Amino acid sequence: MCQLLGMNANTPTDVTFSFSGFAQRGGATDHHSDGWGIAFFEGKGVRHMVDHQSASTSPVAELVRRYPIKSQNVIAHIRKATQGEVSLENCHPFVRELWGRYWVFAHNGNLVDFAPRLHGNFRPVGQTDSERAFCWLMQELAKSHAGVPSVQELTRTLRELVPQIARHGTFNFLLSNGEALWAHASTHLHYVLRRHPFARATLSDEDLSVNFAEHTRENDRVAVVVTQPLTTDENWVALAPGRVHAWVDGDLA
Amino acid sequence: MCQLLGMNANTPTDVTFSFSGFAQRGGATDHHSDGWGIAFFEGKGVRHMVDHQSASTSPVAELVRRYPIKSQNVIAHIRKATQGEVSLENCHPFVRELWGRYWVFAHNGNLVDFAPRLHGNFRPVGQTDSERAFCWLMQELAKSHAGVPSVQELTRTLRELVPQIARHGTFNFLLSNGEALWAHASTHLHYVLRRHPFARATLSDEDLSVNFAEHTRENDRVAVVVTQPLTTDENWVALAPGRVHAWVDGDLA
Repeated sequence: MCQLLGMNANTPTDVTFSFSGFAQRGGATDHHSDGWGIAFFEGKGVRHMVDHQSASTSPVAELVRRYPIKSQNVIAHIRKATQGEVSLENCHPFVRELWGRYWVFAHNGNLVDFAPRLHGNFRPVGQTDSERAFCWLMQELAKSHAGVPSVQELTRTLRELVPQIARHGTFNFLLSNGEALWAHASTHLHYVLRRHPFARATLSDEDLSVNFAEHTRENDRVAVVVTQPLTTDENWVALAPGRVHAWVDGDLA
Repeated sequence: MCQLLGMNANTPTDVTFSFSGFAQRGGATDHHSDGWGIAFFEGKGVRHMVDHQSASTSPVAELVRRYPIKSQNVIAHIRKATQGEVSLENCHPFVRELWGRYWVFAHNGNLVDFAPRLHGNFRPVGQTDSERAFCWLMQELAKSHAGVPSVQELTRTLRELVPQIARHGTFNFLLSNGEALWAHASTHLHYVLRRHPFARATLSDEDLSVNFAEHTRENDRVAVVVTQPLTTDENWVALAPGRVHAWVDGDLA
C-alpha cells in the first residue's frame, strides 16, 4: 500500500518534521520502496520533486529533510507499485495546469477496470491507474466550470465525480491547487489539526519529537492528512470513508 | 539577460560539469540572480526543479551539482527578470503535458506586445511573456497534430509558428519532449557536439576542467546548447538567427 501525506496551513510552514517520519516509511520502517514524490506550493508556483529511489535513501529526500521549504499546501507520496513499472513518470504526485493554476494529485489504492474515455486535454504520461484517474478528474472539472471555482463549489463537483471512480476500487487521494487541500478516503486517511495551544509531538517511526510551541505563533493553524497517524501523542481523526473533505488555511472548509 | 542551457545525448549523461559553470552565472560571475530552474527527462518522466534563490547559492542548485542525475535531455535556465515578479511561478523552465508527453520550455529574451488569443487548454500560471509564448506554442501544436508527431514534422510546424512570436522581440528558446531538443535563436545561442575522440574541456566561469575521455565511451554523443560558450577550449558554433534547430541522440536532426 502506498502512503500519502498532505499539509494545509494558514501561513507558510515547513514540513520537515512530518516528512522525516513519513520518509522512513519509504523503505526503512515499512515496505514502500518503489519511489516517492513531494510537491510544495509557493503562491501559485509549485516545487515538484519525484524520485524512483527509496525515500529513506534518496538524496532528493535528504534535501527535503534538511532544507525547510515553507509552504501552505504540500502533497507527498511514497509508492508501492501496484500498476505500472517503477519509473519516474509513474511517481506521484502528478501535476497538471487547468485555468492557469497548477493542480497536484496523489493516490493510494488500486483501481480495477478503470478505463474512462479521455477525449480531452489531459492524457496520462505513465501507465498507472492513478494518473488515469487524475486526468479524468481534470477533464471533468474542466467541463464543469469555466474558471477556477470557489473551494465550496469545487468540493461539490468532486463529490459528484469521485464516486464514479471509487466504485472501481480503493481511491484514497489528495488534491491541491495551492489554495485548498482536498482528500477522499475509501479506506485509510487520518488528519490532525495543529493549533494554539501547541504541544509536543513524537514521531512513531523515528526517535524524534518536536515542541511545536517553540516553532509557532499563536495564530498558526496547520492541518496534516496522512494514511496512518505519524505521531503517538496527537489527536488523529480518521476520515469518514466515501466523503470528500477540504481544508483551507489549516482548518476544515 | 537570462541564460539558457540545453543538453541532448544518445545515452543518459550527467550535466554536473556544464551546470557547474552555468550556475556560476546565476549571481556569482554574472548578474542573473532572479531565480533559476532545470528539468531532466528520464524516459517519459521529468524531474523539474525551480528556485527563486540565486543559482550560485541555492541549496537545490547545490544538489544538482553534487548529485549526478543522468538524462538524455536537459533544459536549464537562469533568470534575470524582465517581465513578471520574482516568484516561483515565473521561474523557467515551464512544463505542460500534451499528447501524453511532458513538454519543457525555457526562454531568453523579451517579447513586446505579445498578447495572443489563448482560447484553449494551456493558460499561463505566472505573468511572464515567456510562459505566454509557451502556452501559445502548445495550443498551436495541439491544433496542428493529432498525436506526437515525428521530430522532423514537429520541427517543420515550429518553423511556421516561431516567426509569429519572434517578430515581437528576442525569442531565444529551448524546447524538449524527452525525445529531442529544439532551439531557436533570435540573438545568442551556441552549441557544441561532444563525441569521440573526447578531449579536455575547461570552464570559462570556474577553475575547473574535465577530461571527457575518462568519463565516456566511444559511441557517446552529447550536444550542449547554451547562451554563451561555457568552455574555453571547445568548438562552439553560433546558431544561425531565425532558424529552428533540433538535436536527437546528441546530433543535429
